[in-house]
Amino acid sequence: MADLIASLRAGLPAGAVLTDPDVTVSYARDMASFCAAGRPAAVVLPRTVEQVQHVMRTATELRVPVVPQGARTGLSGAANASDGCIVLSLVKMDRVLEINAVDRIAVVEPGVVNATLSRAVLEQGLYYPPDPSSWEQCTIGGNIGTASGGLCCVKYGVTAEYVLGLDVVLADGRLLSTGRRTAKGVAGYDLTRLFVGSEGSLGVVVKAVLALRPAPPEQLVLAAEFPSSAAACEAICRIMERGHAPALLELMDRTCVRAVNDLTGMGLPESTEALLLAAFDTPDPAADLAAVATVCTEAGATEVVPADDAAESEMLLKARRTTLTALEALSSATMIDDVCVPRSRLAEMIDGTAAIADKYRLTIGVVAHAGDGNTHPTVCFDAADPDESRRARESFDEIMALGLELGGTITGEHGVGVLKKEWLARELGPVALELQRGIKQVFDPLGLLNPGKVF
Amino acid sequence: MADLIASLRAGLPAGAVLTDPDVTVSYARDMASFCAAGRPAAVVLPRTVEQVQHVMRTATELRVPVVPQGARTGLSGAANASDGCIVLSLVKMDRVLEINAVDRIAVVEPGVVNATLSRAVLEQGLYYPPDPSSWEQCTIGGNIGTASGGLCCVKYGVTAEYVLGLDVVLADGRLLSTGRRTAKGVAGYDLTRLFVGSEGSLGVVVKAVLALRPAPPEQLVLAAEFPSSAAACEAICRIMERGHAPALLELMDRTCVRAVNDLTGMGLPESTEALLLAAFDTPDPAADLAAVATVCTEAGATEVVPADDAAESEMLLKARRTTLTALEALSSATMIDDVCVPRSRLAEMIDGTAAIADKYRLTIGVVAHAGDGNTHPTVCFDAADPDESRRARESFDEIMALGLELGGTITGEHGVGVLKKEWLARELGPVALELQRGIKQVFDPLGLLNPGKVF
Ligand SMILES: Cc1cc2nc3c(=O)[nH]c(=O)nc-3n(C[C@H](O)[C@H](O)[C@H](O)COP(=O)(O)OP(=O)(O)OC[C@H]3O[C@@H](n4cnc5c(N)ncnc54)[C@H](O)[C@@H]3O)c2cc1C
Ligand SMILES: Cc1cc2nc3c(=O)[nH]c(=O)nc-3n(C[C@H](O)[C@H](O)[C@H](O)COP(=O)(O)OP(=O)(O)OC[C@H]3O[C@@H](n4cnc5c(N)ncnc54)[C@H](O)[C@@H]3O)c2cc1C
Repeated sequence: MADLIASLRAGLPAGAVLTDPDVTVSYARDMASFCAAGRPAAVVLPRTVEQVQHVMRTATELRVPVVPQGARTGLSGAANASDGCIVLSLVKMDRVLEINAVDRIAVVEPGVVNATLSRAVLEQGLYYPPDPSSWEQCTIGGNIGTASGGLCCVKYGVTAEYVLGLDVVLADGRLLSTGRRTAKGVAGYDLTRLFVGSEGSLGVVVKAVLALRPAPPEQLVLAAEFPSSAAACEAICRIMERGHAPALLELMDRTCVRAVNDLTGMGLPESTEALLLAAFDTPDPAADLAAVATVCTEAGATEVVPADDAAESEMLLKARRTTLTALEALSSATMIDDVCVPRSRLAEMIDGTAAIADKYRLTIGVVAHAGDGNTHPTVCFDAADPDESRRARESFDEIMALGLELGGTITGEHGVGVLKKEWLARELGPVALELQRGIKQVFDPLGLLNPGKVF
Repeated sequence: MADLIASLRAGLPAGAVLTDPDVTVSYARDMASFCAAGRPAAVVLPRTVEQVQHVMRTATELRVPVVPQGARTGLSGAANASDGCIVLSLVKMDRVLEINAVDRIAVVEPGVVNATLSRAVLEQGLYYPPDPSSWEQCTIGGNIGTASGGLCCVKYGVTAEYVLGLDVVLADGRLLSTGRRTAKGVAGYDLTRLFVGSEGSLGVVVKAVLALRPAPPEQLVLAAEFPSSAAACEAICRIMERGHAPALLELMDRTCVRAVNDLTGMGLPESTEALLLAAFDTPDPAADLAAVATVCTEAGATEVVPADDAAESEMLLKARRTTLTALEALSSATMIDDVCVPRSRLAEMIDGTAAIADKYRLTIGVVAHAGDGNTHPTVCFDAADPDESRRARESFDEIMALGLELGGTITGEHGVGVLKKEWLARELGPVALELQRGIKQVFDPLGLLNPGKVF
């Protein structure tokens, strides 16, 4: 251990290696409940690629595990420390290196905060779509690590679709460049995509070339109240079937609506069973909203309220973005599922989740990127009550089982981490799992990168 | 050999195994010149997944290499037979299994022809964007094998972006399912994407879940004539910089224009140095075309002609799609480069290619998916003339070297095959190459799948 710290310090500036346990403990875990976390031997905060290489070379030499970290807003324990590991926090590598409007790319270091990049490119009339609700905190490196999504994915896709090329420091300290700066390219196997969503288990991302789009017109939002989630899901299916292209299509159940009101005093309509938010950033958003309003009414909406202007739209989006935080305020602990089903099965997923909540006598709020069929059933429980905690964990698992039954996946965007390891094996089956392990072995033969995560 | 044929026949219906050399020779190569091709021991035409599994089990047992094949329209020799191999042609597995407008997916067998799928989904108001110019022949399996592009990629992206999940028969005959039917999903490493562009070297695709979009409005096309390719490239950069979203943005140089006129008698303007085609499928394409016309004029266009209607637009697209065929008619042989550079470097790429043509005293026509920076410099030469053939090959290589110098890739969409193997190694460098080989080893430890291709 003294050896490790001395070796790390030999290649790093003063202050880049933290060892005070009172400090390092604050780097021990991300935002997921119920996930084991160990005590790091050290936290390292590099500022350059060479410094990251030094850390990985040292780790390989001394056989010490390394846990890459962004802002630790992850929801699956994927960034949690293991005992005696080096936490490698990339947050100080936070420069936007280039924004190029002709090539529509940005080149960034991994510690850049999502919102910082989004604002920087917007100033040049450009748009970086991936927008997890944690966008004011989370980093691009973490977004790449988890392949994260957000509100606008229903129209613009997820992080994976915006990563063109990467610089990655491998477990042994070698530097790998993948992908390209060009709009297209098919030279060899797609290593770039392999890193996206790999949760720090294959290498440390130290630079990324990201695709940008032209900034779309400002979006207008509509809120529709439904007497049942089945009716809301019917509207969602019809909206998508008729070829509309909403920039977001989100669902909040009554529990979520109340939680947001409690936290913010926003005054959302509490009598509704399901609140649907739809937005358009098309040339004529009002016309699109009117068409969608008709679909909602046909599907049984009791009230359809288009936002009058950008300020009202922003208020509605804020309500949606605050939902997880609001649910967290309801009880001493939460477990957030991330099941994604084909959107044609969404109603079954939501009704099935309600039945699970009944069965386990728990509050489970459901908020969903509904246009994508991606639900976040959030189990609220008292962590001090062992029986309730057990029921919470069981209901959390039963929700994933339901998702798989409906042809879905256990994780639409939050990743596997430690929380869903056994479930990953169930979803993938033995053949895929064996191949995934084979790939891990190719990149990290000593198993030093984020051990115990994913599988 | 007798052993092999008997074993194959044991699990396949009569007529599915072809061994007559006069017949099998016609399966020996794709559309690339200058690529070695061997004699297959047999050509197998399976109709079911089980039959493909039988072929792979037999191949593994007897250690016989297998070359998966679609329509053999590939342009890099990736589907060429090797001596004594089994050619595994998927063209009879050609059913569209499902089209779902709510989930916006299609499920298909690999032998479905691109145009067949495109038309089938269009009937339901849906759109499968990837549209290689070979779309009337090429198969979805081949499109996945090469990660192919097309004209509409500048707006809609390439094949990779539309493959959600795959069923793949592995080298040893086991069946692997990857990915999902859902809009999103991040469960484990992205094996789906690894297969896209893997040129039949990792497994045999037997089923694909493809993402669809709502059918866009009919597109309108504009043609602009430029006195130099530099001026045309200036227009392209400004169009993209100003945030336009053309559904295609293609460039043909004078050689291409003349070749198309010669072949089709279309009467395109031959006095121009560079003909730019732009199209919009937006709600108001005429307005977008007018804006782009202004940009073209500012950049020095001598003539800008918006198509009056869909028929005229279709005529212009046909001219573009015919270009490779027309260039092929110019001489006894062609070699088609596929270099993609950042679009800000496109002018340098095209001017550099002209210099290379001069240096080697050859005709090199350039047609480009210009909005993506993806050029197809096509070297026309007399294959019977050894000196001209040598110069052709050298110029072909020098064009790739130029592409790499400009920050580009040796292949934007046609793949590596046997034609660009050494160049792949140059582009990737030793670290990436070692990892790619490691991945190949995980999926195909005996090296039976399409040996000698890619690397
Ligand atoms: C209130 C709230 C709302 C959220 N909303 C969303 C949402 O809408 N959509 C969504 O997808 N997620 C959401 N999340 C989850 C989380 O914010 C995302 O997963 C985010 O991408 C994590 O980024 P981070 O910087 O915090 O990464 P961390 O949590 O620090 O790390 C995440 C993973 O990436 C790895 N990693 C980090 N940096 C690197 C690097 N440089 N190289 C290699 N690996 C690295 C880590 O090892 C870990 O496996 C939300 C979270 C919260 C708390
Ligand atoms: C006139 C012309 C125009 C073209 N225009 C374009 C264009 O605009 N854009 C573009 O990208 N390409 C273009 N191409 C190239 C070619 O058409 C594409 O690469 C196409 O995707 C090949 O499809 P195919 O069915 O012919 O596949 P093949 O040529 O038969 O095979 C291609 C590769 O895929 C593998 N493969 C095939 N089926 C399977 C399977 N089921 N499982 C695993 N591997 C498989 C093969 O082993 C091989 O490596 C053009 C070609 C021609 C002749």
